[in-house]
Parts: sequence; structure tokens; C-alpha cells
Amino acid sequence: MTVTSPQGFRAAGITAGLKASGTPDLALVVNDGPEHTAAAVFTSNRVVGAPVMWSRQAVKDGVARAVVLNSGGANVCTGPGGFQDAHATAEKVADELGIGAIDVLVGSTGLIGVRLAADKLLAGVPVAVGALAADDAGGLAAATAIMTTDTVPKTAVRTVETPSGGTFTVGGMAKGAGMLAPALATMLCVITTDASVAAADADAALRAATRVTFDRVDSDGAMSTSDTVVLMASGASNVTPDLDVLTDAVTAICADLARQLVADAEGASHDIAITVTNATTEDAALAVARAVSRSNLVKAAVFGNDPNWGRILSQVGTVPEEVAPFDPAELDVSVNGVLVCKAGGAYEPPEKVDMAAARDVTFTIDLHAGDAEVTLWTNDLTHDYVHENSAYSS
Amino acid sequence: MTVTSPQGFRAAGITAGLKASGTPDLALVVNDGPEHTAAAVFTSNRVVGAPVMWSRQAVKDGVARAVVLNSGGANVCTGPGGFQDAHATAEKVADELGIGAIDVLVGSTGLIGVRLAADKLLAGVPVAVGALAADDAGGLAAATAIMTTDTVPKTAVRTVETPSGGTFTVGGMAKGAGMLAPALATMLCVITTDASVAAADADAALRAATRVTFDRVDSDGAMSTSDTVVLMASGASNVTPDLDVLTDAVTAICADLARQLVADAEGASHDIAITVTNATTEDAALAVARAVSRSNLVKAAVFGNDPNWGRILSQVGTVPEEVAPFDPAELDVSVNGVLVCKAGGAYEPPEKVDMAAARDVTFTIDLHAGDAEVTLWTNDLTHDYVHENSAYSS
Repeated sequence: MTVTSPQGFRAAGITAGLKASGTPDLALVVNDGPEHTAAAVFTSNRVVGAPVMWSRQAVKDGVARAVVLNSGGANVCTGPGGFQDAHATAEKVADELGIGAIDVLVGSTGLIGVRLAADKLLAGVPVAVGALAADDAGGLAAATAIMTTDTVPKTAVRTVETPSGGTFTVGGMAKGAGMLAPALATMLCVITTDASVAAADADAALRAATRVTFDRVDSDGAMSTSDTVVLMASGASNVTPDLDVLTDAVTAICADLARQLVADAEGASHDIAITVTNATTEDAALAVARAVSRSNLVKAAVFGNDPNWGRILSQVGTVPEEVAPFDPAELDVSVNGVLVCKAGGAYEPPEKVDMAAARDVTFTIDLHAGDAEVTLWTNDLTHDYVHENSAYSS
Repeated sequence: MTVTSPQGFRAAGITAGLKASGTPDLALVVNDGPEHTAAAVFTSNRVVGAPVMWSRQAVKDGVARAVVLNSGGANVCTGPGGFQDAHATAEKVADELGIGAIDVLVGSTGLIGVRLAADKLLAGVPVAVGALAADDAGGLAAATAIMTTDTVPKTAVRTVETPSGGTFTVGGMAKGAGMLAPALATMLCVITTDASVAAADADAALRAATRVTFDRVDSDGAMSTSDTVVLMASGASNVTPDLDVLTDAVTAICADLARQLVADAEGASHDIAITVTNATTEDAALAVARAVSRSNLVKAAVFGNDPNWGRILSQVGTVPEEVAPFDPAELDVSVNGVLVCKAGGAYEPPEKVDMAAARDVTFTIDLHAGDAEVTLWTNDLTHDYVHENSAYSS
């Protein structure tokens, strides 16, 4: 069901005492091999947490044997002391497992600007190592320990038969209460596979997968200071899939987890899938979709079950021509399949659109400019969003 | 007090019946000369209303004798019929005043995608012409007739003595319930002056003024489909100010009106002034300020009176290095004058910041990278904003 489904992995989730709530807050995922290939993608934010600084260096050689993750504190803007905390955590995990610290990646989520309770964190590491298990329970415990405002743990698994008859498995876990979540909506994700994968292929597959999944879940357009997605491959299946087969499998796991993030977005009452069709390029389609996804006016209208295509068109019009060529007089917009705007003007009556019936809402924006298409997911803007994000303690 | 304060102008505001509410909805401002210099800036949105299409052409020669404005409908996405409505309105005003239609600018605000009740609009024009008055009452009536969700009419006036001893006056009116307003927050503004101004100087002064005023009021970063700022100069004072004197006066009027827009932002409980200091360039400072102003997480925190500098720093970090060079480890952030973040980490305790005491909130972000500075205004994200914008009819 999760990161322990592929052969060669053990996981644990325990309570180290970092969270005031007393819920699990320390997760560990260990790759027992025989191979220890790893790749990772990180936030593009220039302000990053100490764990990101550490892990960027640690994964450079394409090798990792363990990932340690904590909730209850992001360890961001914590200065040299915070970096030391991240380093000490990796060292402690390495000591307990008899490996090198440079093969231990670190991920943290929680408030910015506050030092972690390093004593509790370090004391928790041996407990987590002692709890490591290769079964579903171990994987689920790890997925639970990285939750912050998530209401459910998020896991996924796919078993893939290769054209040559071999079978390998990909598993994953993620945290993040969607783009409309409180605080900084840090996204942490660990993906495991028992396929045998070269480091360059792991990196290529992971980058290709995140580009069309996590990168197409958008709220205010800003990645957090801590976003981290790690892929570890154990080679325990003795199957070496082609890059495209591996990429498809990793993409499926990322897409599954990304949709779970959207579905768990706190404060949201609608998930919105924005599809831009007939753009000149994929980048052009994505730019238009992002412009629409970032409009509070569009999102508040969806909360009010109002198919307000004028607000959509107004956002489409903010994209510069050099980014996305199109003729404003040719734009079509459908909401939930009803063509409310045709050729830049009113068409089907908005009353025909039923938005109250379901959580899912679809916008389709036809640019009539080319043949590229992109879908981006976001949520509506609700009273609960404002409440969660104004009441959340600093 | 308003557009009729400078010599040479008359104005009127009447009820044509475009609004269901029955409140005034048609405004007219006439420049009686002796000169009829005009300049205008329009929305940068690629989807624009018919009035913008018309007025862009009409002002190209640097001459305008009248501006007719209506609330109760934006005349956007209304096709060739909508353009005809805008044209017919200009023609009607021209007929009534005995001037050419090409010297009449048009501005409209209200819902997108719905044709105006052209019969009511055209029937209202002679009534407005009959009501034209050169006194304060005429100017105030015009300022009132362009209101939509505004709670108060917005007007401003400055009288300036030139170094050579002459005196000229600049007046203005604007509508727009700030950036957090319902619907598309169209901003319409008419500025009048009795200075004698060459067309090129009018254009230069207006562009310089809007760049540092209206362009620095930001919400979701999108200009509406109808934003229009018009400057008309009558020359009736016989004073020809230097360009910098004129620019300063027009900038003062625009700044005054821009602050009134922010103060009237519906649904907002705090006005936020974001000052970015010590940037390498003005553009770099502005990019950082805009990134912060567009964060729902930052804005919701302000609604909750929470000086959450971590959310501010996270937004600053989203600006690419090629746009705004700075070292994340050197960033300082003050909220209401309290240095809560120094050198990228926690400093003064957030409890020292009192945000509940006043409507105004200030962020000061020191990039330690150069000597450029910019201030941008925005508002907080509140329950009332969501309510207004989800309940507003499509």
C-alpha cells in the first residue's frame, strides 16, 4: 500500500514529542538494497530550510540509504544552528543504522523560524530505528507521522509488468493539505521502488513525473521553503525497466498522491480542474491555466457555485501575448461541460451549469491557437480557508 | 473638490436606469477649453471592453472634449454589438454638445458579458448634458454616478503655484472599491487641469503618475478589462507648468485617489503598505513587493493580526534571482516597525507587534542589495471578501 510495498524497504513512524498535540511526528524510510539509487527534487524557493540545504548535497552522488522526516517544525530561517540540527539528525540516523550520514536525507515540515527541539528529535531516532518494519504497518506509520494539517495519510502503490515479463513495484507516501492548506503547505513525498535503476534514470524519471503532477497543483503559485520529493530504488526485484516504463510508473504514483493532496485541501469545497486546449505550446497552455488558478475572484465565484466566465476570461487576458499567443475574440470557455462563452462572448446561459451537485468542477478554455493541452488542479476560496489561515498561530 | 475645480470644466451625474438599484449611473465630464489636450492610460489586459477599444483610438490625437462614463455594465465581451453601443454613446454625446464623436472618450464599469441597455443609456445623454454644471455639485454628481460597490465617491484636488508665480489646479475623481472589491474591481479615473499642456507632456505626466500610484495598488495582480485613467487639460489658467511640476501635481492627485481606493476596499479590515528597501533596482523592489502582496497566506495572517514573517520570507524567496538579486541570509523584515526577522532568522518576538490597534499595517523588507525602494499597497484577505465575491451575481 505504501513505501514498504516494494521489496527492500522498511519504514517507521513514532512520536518524538515535537508536536504539542502528542501525535506521531518522526518518520524513517530505509532502503536495505541491494542497490541504493536515489534522486530528489526540491522547492524552487530561494529561501529554503536547513533540511533542503543538507539533502541537496547528500543526494548529489545519486545514492541514499535512508530518509528521516519530521513534522512539528520546518527548520527554516533557523540559521547555522538549524543546519546543525539537520546534520545531527542525519548523523544520528547513520550511527544507528551503521551507514554514512551523507547517505541520509532529511525532510521537515511545520512552522518557519523556530528551532526544532533537537534533544527530542535525536532521542526519537533510535526509537524509530527500533520500530522499522517491512510490512504495511511500517509504511502507514511513516505516512501518518509526516501529517500536519492533513486529515488522512496519503499513500499509493503500483505494480508494473515490463514488456519482457519482469515485475517491479513503486510505492509512495506524501503529506500536504493541498494548496489551500494552512501555513506554508509544505509538500513532502517519498517514493520507493524495487526496480534496478541507474542514478541518471532515477533523476530523469522523477523530474519528468513531478513536472506533470505536483507542479500542476497550484494555489498562490509559490512553492514552500521545504518541498521535497525523494525517489529511492533498491533493485531488489532484479528487474531493470526501460526509462519510459519507469517514468510512467513514477508518474502514476505522483499523480495519485497529487490528487490526494487536492482532495484533502482544508477549507476547500470544490476541486477545480482547469484544462487549456489548443494552445501553441504546453508552456503557453500552462501559463494560461496558472493565471486562472491564481485568481481569488475566480476561486470565490466557484465557492459561490457561480460559473462566472467573465472572471475567467479576464484572467486569461492577463497572460502576455509573447507567452501565449491567442485572439481574445476566439476564446471559448466551458464550465462543467457547458459552453458558457463562445468566441469571446456569452453563449449558453450560465443557469445551465450545475456546480452545487459535486465537489469536482471543470473549466475548459479553448485558445484556438494550436494543439497543446494542459490540465492544472486548484481549489476554491472559502470562508474556511480564511479561517484556517488567519487563526493559525505564528 | 473634484473634476470641476479647475477652470474650464463642467460635469454631471444622472440616473439613466442602467442599474437595478435605481442609483445614478451616467456621468459626463466636459472640457470647455480653450484647449482640449487629453491623454489616457488603459488596462494592459488583452481582453478589453468596447469602451477601451473606442477610447484608445479616440485619444490618439491627444485631443478630447468630453468623457462619458457609466456604471451598471462594463460592456466587455459583448462583440460587435457592444462596440456599436460604445460608439453610439460617443456619437450621442457629440451631437448634444455640437462636437465630433472622435473627441468623446467612453468608460464603463459593471458586469462582463452582458449588453448595456443602449436605449436607456442614449436617452440619458441629453439629461446629463442638461445637468452639466461647473460647480462642486456637478463634479460630485459625476463622481457619485460612477460608483459601483464603492461606499463613498472619491475626489481630489490640488492647487499648485509654479516657480514663476502662476497658479493652476488639478482635480480628479475615481471609482473602484479597491483591489479586494467584488467583481473585477474596474478602476475608472478622470483627472482635469486648467494648466496649458502640450499633448506629449500630458501623456508623459499621466504615465509617470500612474506608474507610481495606481500601478502600485495590487491585489491578485490582474488589471481588469476596463481600467481607464483620463487626463484633460483646458489651458483656462493661462499657466504652462514645467513637465516636472505638472507631473508632481498629477501624481499627487493619483496618489490621493489610489489611497482612497485602498481605504474603501470592501471586505478588508487592514490596509497593508509593503515597503521594499535596499533593492538593486526599482523593478527588483517592485517584484518582491508584488510577490508578497499576492500571497493569500500573508493576507489571511494579517486578517488574523498575526505578524507571520515566515510567510513573508517565503514569498520573497519566490522571486527569481535574475529579477531581484539578494542573499536570503541577509533579509530583514519589520512589521509595524518591529524587526521580527533579522538576517533571515527570528529576532524581536512577534508578540511585540500590535496589529489589532489600527487599520494600517506596514511591512518593511530590507534586501541589503542596493539602494532602491518601493512601496506597494494591498489589503488583507477576510471572510467579507470571500462573502462579497462568492455572493456577487454572475
